[in-house]
Amino acid sequence: MTKSKAEIGVAFLGVGRMGETHLRNLAAVNGVRVRVVADPILEAAEHGRELCGADRAIANTEEAILDPAVDAVIIVTPTDTHARLIETAVLAGKAVFSEKPIALDLAETKRVVDLIDQKGAAVQLGFMRRFDPGYAEAKKRIDQGELGRIESFRALSRDTYPPPLKFLLQSGGSFLDMAVHDLDLARFLVGEVEEVSAWGTVLIDDRFAQAQDTDTAVVMLKFKNGALGVVEMSRRSKWGYDIRTEVAGADAKVVIEAPQKTPMTMSQEFGARYDHYENFPDRFEAAYRLELQAFFEALKSGQKPSPGAGDALETLRLAIAARRSWQENRPVKISEIQP
Amino acid sequence: MTKSKAEIGVAFLGVGRMGETHLRNLAAVNGVRVRVVADPILEAAEHGRELCGADRAIANTEEAILDPAVDAVIIVTPTDTHARLIETAVLAGKAVFSEKPIALDLAETKRVVDLIDQKGAAVQLGFMRRFDPGYAEAKKRIDQGELGRIESFRALSRDTYPPPLKFLLQSGGSFLDMAVHDLDLARFLVGEVEEVSAWGTVLIDDRFAQAQDTDTAVVMLKFKNGALGVVEMSRRSKWGYDIRTEVAGADAKVVIEAPQKTPMTMSQEFGARYDHYENFPDRFEAAYRLELQAFFEALKSGQKPSPGAGDALETLRLAIAARRSWQENRPVKISEIQP
Amino acid sequence: MTKSKAEIGVAFLGVGRMGETHLRNLAAVNGVRVRVVADPILEAAEHGRELCGADRAIANTEEAILDPAVDAVIIVTPTDTHARLIETAVLAGKAVFSEKPIALDLAETKRVVDLIDQKGAAVQLGFMRRFDPGYAEAKKRIDQGELGRIESFRALSRDTYPPPLKFLLQSGGSFLDMAVHDLDLARFLVGEVEEVSAWGTVLIDDRFAQAQDTDTAVVMLKFKNGALGVVEMSRRSKWGYDIRTEVAGADAKVVIEAPQKTPMTMSQEFGARYDHYENFPDRFEAAYRLELQAFFEALKSGQKPSPGAGDALETLRLAIAARRSWQENRPVKISEIQP
Amino acid sequence: MTKSKAEIGVAFLGVGRMGETHLRNLAAVNGVRVRVVADPILEAAEHGRELCGADRAIANTEEAILDPAVDAVIIVTPTDTHARLIETAVLAGKAVFSEKPIALDLAETKRVVDLIDQKGAAVQLGFMRRFDPGYAEAKKRIDQGELGRIESFRALSRDTYPPPLKFLLQSGGSFLDMAVHDLDLARFLVGEVEEVSAWGTVLIDDRFAQAQDTDTAVVMLKFKNGALGVVEMSRRSKWGYDIRTEVAGADAKVVIEAPQKTPMTMSQEFGARYDHYENFPDRFEAAYRLELQAFFEALKSGQKPSPGAGDALETLRLAIAARRSWQENRPVKISEIQP
Repeated sequence: MTKSKAEIGVAFLGVGRMGETHLRNLAAVNGVRVRVVADPILEAAEHGRELCGADRAIANTEEAILDPAVDAVIIVTPTDTHARLIETAVLAGKAVFSEKPIALDLAETKRVVDLIDQKGAAVQLGFMRRFDPGYAEAKKRIDQGELGRIESFRALSRDTYPPPLKFLLQSGGSFLDMAVHDLDLARFLVGEVEEVSAWGTVLIDDRFAQAQDTDTAVVMLKFKNGALGVVEMSRRSKWGYDIRTEVAGADAKVVIEAPQKTPMTMSQEFGARYDHYENFPDRFEAAYRLELQAFFEALKSGQKPSPGAGDALETLRLAIAARRSWQENRPVKISEIQP
Repeated sequence: MTKSKAEIGVAFLGVGRMGETHLRNLAAVNGVRVRVVADPILEAAEHGRELCGADRAIANTEEAILDPAVDAVIIVTPTDTHARLIETAVLAGKAVFSEKPIALDLAETKRVVDLIDQKGAAVQLGFMRRFDPGYAEAKKRIDQGELGRIESFRALSRDTYPPPLKFLLQSGGSFLDMAVHDLDLARFLVGEVEEVSAWGTVLIDDRFAQAQDTDTAVVMLKFKNGALGVVEMSRRSKWGYDIRTEVAGADAKVVIEAPQKTPMTMSQEFGARYDHYENFPDRFEAAYRLELQAFFEALKSGQKPSPGAGDALETLRLAIAARRSWQENRPVKISEIQP
Repeated sequence: MTKSKAEIGVAFLGVGRMGETHLRNLAAVNGVRVRVVADPILEAAEHGRELCGADRAIANTEEAILDPAVDAVIIVTPTDTHARLIETAVLAGKAVFSEKPIALDLAETKRVVDLIDQKGAAVQLGFMRRFDPGYAEAKKRIDQGELGRIESFRALSRDTYPPPLKFLLQSGGSFLDMAVHDLDLARFLVGEVEEVSAWGTVLIDDRFAQAQDTDTAVVMLKFKNGALGVVEMSRRSKWGYDIRTEVAGADAKVVIEAPQKTPMTMSQEFGARYDHYENFPDRFEAAYRLELQAFFEALKSGQKPSPGAGDALETLRLAIAARRSWQENRPVKISEIQP
Repeated sequence: MTKSKAEIGVAFLGVGRMGETHLRNLAAVNGVRVRVVADPILEAAEHGRELCGADRAIANTEEAILDPAVDAVIIVTPTDTHARLIETAVLAGKAVFSEKPIALDLAETKRVVDLIDQKGAAVQLGFMRRFDPGYAEAKKRIDQGELGRIESFRALSRDTYPPPLKFLLQSGGSFLDMAVHDLDLARFLVGEVEEVSAWGTVLIDDRFAQAQDTDTAVVMLKFKNGALGVVEMSRRSKWGYDIRTEVAGADAKVVIEAPQKTPMTMSQEFGARYDHYENFPDRFEAAYRLELQAFFEALKSGQKPSPGAGDALETLRLAIAARRSWQENRPVKISEIQP
């Protein structure tokens, strides 16, 4: 099978559940060829290779990055490997799409961001919600000024299933692992935040207490442009994946929400019922597809992909500020949080 | 208690369930005083009197009409008395609000319409849906030309509970008793109809067969302006009162429907549920209130109230045409149906 | 006109815009007779008398209360008169329905509450939202345990039009005047609050700054039962009256919102549009009607009407705590706020 | 690149707009390898080859079918080639997925169906709506008996853009080209139809009159199980692709509709607006993906794919009956329509 020179050669790292989703989506992106799939578990790598028809499957992720046929690296490995793999790829002159976060530690994140800046590397982080057609449309309306001056922001996120304790212990906690998506939306849709104040508690599952984490939290945001906001977070929702975001301005408001999954409503016994999305893979199916397309389109057109590592760093500062506010029971200015 | 000369004196005839609704609504209409409530069952009349604070309660409806303090008569008596009571009122120079129909018979209806025309009487018939804010807004948009040339009409009506056999036998059948509301909307929102073709069957309840009636029917409409339409009808709905009307034009469409009654949605078990209206009294609560207000506002301003007896006659012709189409299993032109 | 002994005689005080709404609603309540309407502006009183067919209209509110034919007093006068009028009525042995608040001052409110408790008086305050069918249904589901343990609460309120400066200066500020409705819902739906933390700003109108008030605010709530909550508030909404309340529990969540006013949706240019409620009189039309009915039903059945003065006091403490939190830029425990 | 023996080899015929959609979807189906893409326009074939990474691109569709590496043929060529290509494939022992219709002529369709039956071939026709999650869920609920006895069916379809005259002249007319999707749903969701009665007119575009076709039509359906139905059709919709289907039974009803495309609602000027789907490619994006997956899953599991050629034949009879009813202005029994 001959392929045109214009094709972007890809190394794909990490074939877990999220990896499979990305691999399937990759198959539908034009002008891209997965050269190598790597996963420490070789069977997983081989499975990934089959999903996308890649040339080879290997266990060594660094080797995959350094493959000369590889132009871009997609990183879907465990969180604690992101920083090192991004650095390796950037040093090797490769473009990078990595799942968030770069790292849970600010200094480490800053080090990676600095390297990326220094090298002028093309790096995109997986804040997929920005690519959901609802959020993208909201952003467009806001940028066009249709809302007028932004006055308030609200993000609610309820995860369907609480994660296992093992995951909790290495996740950085609910603010860094989960609220981070809403905090990224805050920055994306409204702008930089000046100060946060958070309250958290454990209502759902004692494992969160064991992990010195919170499973139910609220955060107030003070934006630099004067707007106020709130973020609400819960780590379990028996009614499905519950994500709602609102931005209100002087002239209009937008609500981003997809309450109904299947386009069928059933009426019986004096009422009607429709179904909710189960979890992020079905709710953000299009977003995962579109973020990869955007990454490769940016590469092809020579533009910097977005959201980049700088965004990841700023959002991490926000999440750390929120966590600290909760831990220390006081408002925290983002300026306090420095790498 | 003194009352100003400007007050409209009212005779209220018929205190059944519908009558009670009208009586309560009357209490909130300014500038109106119920002088007399009449019902052959004197206890009912007395109960009605109490509901609106009327001066007196009597059994004789004709006597109530002729009361010199009465300017307007509200007729909520059984269908077979409407024609006679309207005529009595019109001959006595009174304004009339009457529940529909004038009569189930075309010749009798025509006789009443002619008398009303001859006397220039102010008569309004109770096609309350026209006053529902949804239908009123749709009408406004259509009249403003926002839909462009009207191309299609659809009305669906499902009654919650099938009526008792006794009612069925004297109702004129489902086309005259029930579809008549949708046919009135067809005329109100689109215009006059040229031809109808109806199919009906008995699926719900054998009593409809006993009454030589149909409980489930569909009707196609050909409008004089070229538009096509359908009316769907069912006499039982286990999920609540199910009314939906659509008008589509070259530029836009309107859908009139109130699927949710209580402004509360409950999410559980991966879905959400809201409730439907139970029946016409809750779905058209505002419409019943607004039709009476419109009647008295018309009287006060010296304008003819609407929909008038002529509308009732034309809509009856339509309903009879649909019934005949079903009975004779052939399309029927409205021009065939003459008093 | 003779009236039965069972009728409740009413003195109605204050015929402004809100008063007119109550007067119209009163007309539809059975077993109630307005004996006297009082307003310092006699023309207003006379207008009110006409609206409900009361026996007489006078300027002196105290005289109205003391009328021996009066069993119950409805107080819709300016805020600074509520406490005195309630006390007068309670001392005279009358039942009271009063618009909220009792007073803006805690000590004064406490004094009134103590008097009411001492006299065992039947007093209901006008937190009408509790009677909106959406909130009432939510309460019912929560009380039936359908949501499981309550974990989070969120109330958003955006008033359509900012009030005039004169009103602002005597309103007690946005927390006492406006957020108070949401704080009452927090107590109604979830339970007592332990601590609040509020941020506020002025984004809409400098008059709020002149009045040392805020026009845009967020509040975090810590409930005694462990749940967390947020209240968001804005004093202007160009898209209509924007009220949304959510309560989530271990098993289910309820959302109370009425996003669509008129049951008509118009589709054109690749989208659909429906209208929002304009303001509290249309959004809470049913609630205003139902709260009065509930008041009189309680009187007739000999039960204490609710929400009572104790509720008003507790909610005032919450509102004052939120205001203090904003003013002093620190979390405030409700236990700090004592009369 | 080595591939496992279990892979299904595919010949893909026809690379127009619809073909591209199917090719992209194919890329995400596991266990399938496109061996050859054929299109009389070789550049189109080559473009198709690139989209799916096929082995080769050729102009000759028959040659592609006969390729020994080919197990299944996907036919997305012009309508008048379907019958011949299906026959060639079936005779060569290949499985077939073909866009509908088999042919516009009943005898030709019957000939193909008979051949398929004789050979026991695995053939699926592209009635994609059946695979839309809304319709699939509705079917499931109906089959589970949740609706009780089915009493009524309603399908509304409004195409966004009227097709060009050239297309109209060879399309078989609106009943065969467009209403056929709704008639297939009628059979899928309710069952076989006994009789139809159709009215049609030309309101949108005189080209329909030139093509002796109708652009606006209504059809009544009498089902063998006693249910009644209506189909409404329009060939232009300025507000987007407008598809709504309803099935009501003794116990419940289902409504299949996707009124909102992007999960964002914008509130401004006292109302809210959301967007509609533009056309079938966005509305039925998932359905196109899922129908191909179902086809290959059937092949892998050795089951007959569905809907098969027999369904296509029965639905064609229905569409021809509706067209004849319109042309001859009389009800037509389906039994009249014989190959």
